[in-house]
Amino acid sequence: MKITNEGISVKGFLSLGKNIGIKKAKKDFAILYSEKPCAAAGVFTANKVKGAPVYVTMNHLKKGIAQAIVVNSGNANVCTGKQGISNAKRIAEMAAYQLSIPKEHVLVASTGIIGKQLPMDKFEKGVKGIKSELSGSSDFAEAILTTDTIKKQVTVIGDGFKISGAAKGSGMISPNMATMLAFLVTDAKMDSKSLKKHLKIAVDKSFNMVNVDMDTSTSDMALILASGDAGKVNENKFQEVLDAACIELAKLIAKDGEGATKLLIVETINAKTEEDAKKIAKKITMSPLIKCALFGSDPNWGRILCAIGNSGGNFKENKIKVSINNTLIVENGIEAKSFNSYKISKLIESNKTITITVDLGMGKASATAYGCDMSYDYVKINATYTT
Amino acid sequence: MKITNEGISVKGFLSLGKNIGIKKAKKDFAILYSEKPCAAAGVFTANKVKGAPVYVTMNHLKKGIAQAIVVNSGNANVCTGKQGISNAKRIAEMAAYQLSIPKEHVLVASTGIIGKQLPMDKFEKGVKGIKSELSGSSDFAEAILTTDTIKKQVTVIGDGFKISGAAKGSGMISPNMATMLAFLVTDAKMDSKSLKKHLKIAVDKSFNMVNVDMDTSTSDMALILASGDAGKVNENKFQEVLDAACIELAKLIAKDGEGATKLLIVETINAKTEEDAKKIAKKITMSPLIKCALFGSDPNWGRILCAIGNSGGNFKENKIKVSINNTLIVENGIEAKSFNSYKISKLIESNKTITITVDLGMGKASATAYGCDMSYDYVKINATYTT
Repeated sequence: MKITNEGISVKGFLSLGKNIGIKKAKKDFAILYSEKPCAAAGVFTANKVKGAPVYVTMNHLKKGIAQAIVVNSGNANVCTGKQGISNAKRIAEMAAYQLSIPKEHVLVASTGIIGKQLPMDKFEKGVKGIKSELSGSSDFAEAILTTDTIKKQVTVIGDGFKISGAAKGSGMISPNMATMLAFLVTDAKMDSKSLKKHLKIAVDKSFNMVNVDMDTSTSDMALILASGDAGKVNENKFQEVLDAACIELAKLIAKDGEGATKLLIVETINAKTEEDAKKIAKKITMSPLIKCALFGSDPNWGRILCAIGNSGGNFKENKIKVSINNTLIVENGIEAKSFNSYKISKLIESNKTITITVDLGMGKASATAYGCDMSYDYVKINATYTT
Repeated sequence: MKITNEGISVKGFLSLGKNIGIKKAKKDFAILYSEKPCAAAGVFTANKVKGAPVYVTMNHLKKGIAQAIVVNSGNANVCTGKQGISNAKRIAEMAAYQLSIPKEHVLVASTGIIGKQLPMDKFEKGVKGIKSELSGSSDFAEAILTTDTIKKQVTVIGDGFKISGAAKGSGMISPNMATMLAFLVTDAKMDSKSLKKHLKIAVDKSFNMVNVDMDTSTSDMALILASGDAGKVNENKFQEVLDAACIELAKLIAKDGEGATKLLIVETINAKTEEDAKKIAKKITMSPLIKCALFGSDPNWGRILCAIGNSGGNFKENKIKVSINNTLIVENGIEAKSFNSYKISKLIESNKTITITVDLGMGKASATAYGCDMSYDYVKINATYTT
């Protein structure tokens, strides 16, 4: 298995990304296209308020077949009522016409501001001639971004097959599908039911373990298309490769959290159950107090214990060990004898990736969550988003 | 019923607040004392990691009698192991000796940094001669503060009885008992069992509906002492007065949230159940995206709908109405026709108290939650707390 940050590079898949005028100048319209119909599956936001594209894509996925994904950034098409639904359907229809495929084989996704109708005239113009514009560039990964600062792409080469993907996500990011779009393609041969099972498992280990700011967006989705070109594959190996692809994209999202200066990885080890391990790892990534302390290189380990106590996970306080980047800071639930406030502060300051390891000393289960620090820029970005 | 911000002013109760050297110069040691033994009750943090004073005070309350409360700020005595417990016991013992009362009648509370042992030598010196220093000043309310910027005091005059209280709380504040200490006294006559019942009800409507930053502290407690001087009272009226006292203190806490520039009040009305109303009101106060938008006067109503969708409360999207300070911004789940982005931005900018009203149009239940905006100063305060 080889993991790289190469973009969508599975044979038979083409893409494009361009500006159609939803944003002033940046790319805001993207298409991912397969030369043949694919088995397809998706996982969607847990927010009860869902964007119109979420409903339309869920509906188009009912038969488990898709051939294209159309994405726009700059406007999420959420809280837009019946008009929003008919606009999302219309986009699928327009793209289907240009690509000469059934409209039900087109999946749609939108990300950006909530509550405004899409500028449909711009889609009508922008969609014309897309078939001739399709290529293998990374413009797709660029055009799906909003407040993101970096493109998020991955290619993982497995045993005789490949998975490529691109994602976006920077704010409104929390477990249960972060505000996050992820699009994956593979040449493995698999029916849509198995594909969905594997995608769900991978999402639970990756995107559902990312937290930037505790808000689960209305627009989240992860989609996968499988062309079958590479023939049947070992399902366990497929799961491993898909996990790796999703975890790499999840890390890129966490690292690029709004205003983030550091990637936070939290591992809970030796928990009684995986559920306990997950709850504790997630809660630590969710604490604004810990996030601010990381930004300020403040070795405030008490906040980590406080978050563990709030997590709902099982633990025994006097068995807890905590390390930061392999340096022990808490032992038996109290400050480690070797703890040196100055050294830990320097350790945090000098590393772009901070790994907090919580050893519960109770069992054999573990889990990993991904997050980031909270800086002045997080406030700045979100105090002035629409205005 | 008359609500004022006068400090502890129930006859028979004395207090003090002074510096004993835990902090550099600010007051850090406080005592609340009743001239006679009182019926007493408490409500405590839901965090599974609890401070040593929480355990000691819970234990001392078993018989429902207390005569003094000793509080220190600057050090929370949390994650301090067996030493921490014995230090908390020792403080009760020292104060009891000075006040000539049983040590079990002394309740203790600490707030401040986690994970450091209390400087017991400073307590030994500081506690000497406290009995002669007791008075009726508001130094008590000052000495219990940490990052708070204002004293939080309330006196409510009921029909033939009075309730006074003081509270602290500014960060690590979230429902399920905010990082928050609240001390209430009354001259009403009531046994400790009834007192506890009424306190629990009042806390659920007030302190448990406050959110600053989603972290439930390890040290939270609300305590009440009832001297009985005013004789028996009507229990419904007592509940009303206690609710009013606790809600006033809760509002003062929310308004003084770390870095806050605005008080946020969220009312959910016409919900199917009170549980739905509570979940939705709380979740809105908990969204960092909404908190940042308020700070930046950004009329981003989509984030309010997103939070409602994440709350776990029941609603029908197309029935939701949302108002800000009585101006309608969302109708039938979409942008109100009268919505004017510029006007709403000005409305937020020019008000120190922002009331978001969510009308679910489904029933008759309602709930109110209290919070604040999130500013650069929240990050600043919490990026540099221990260092």
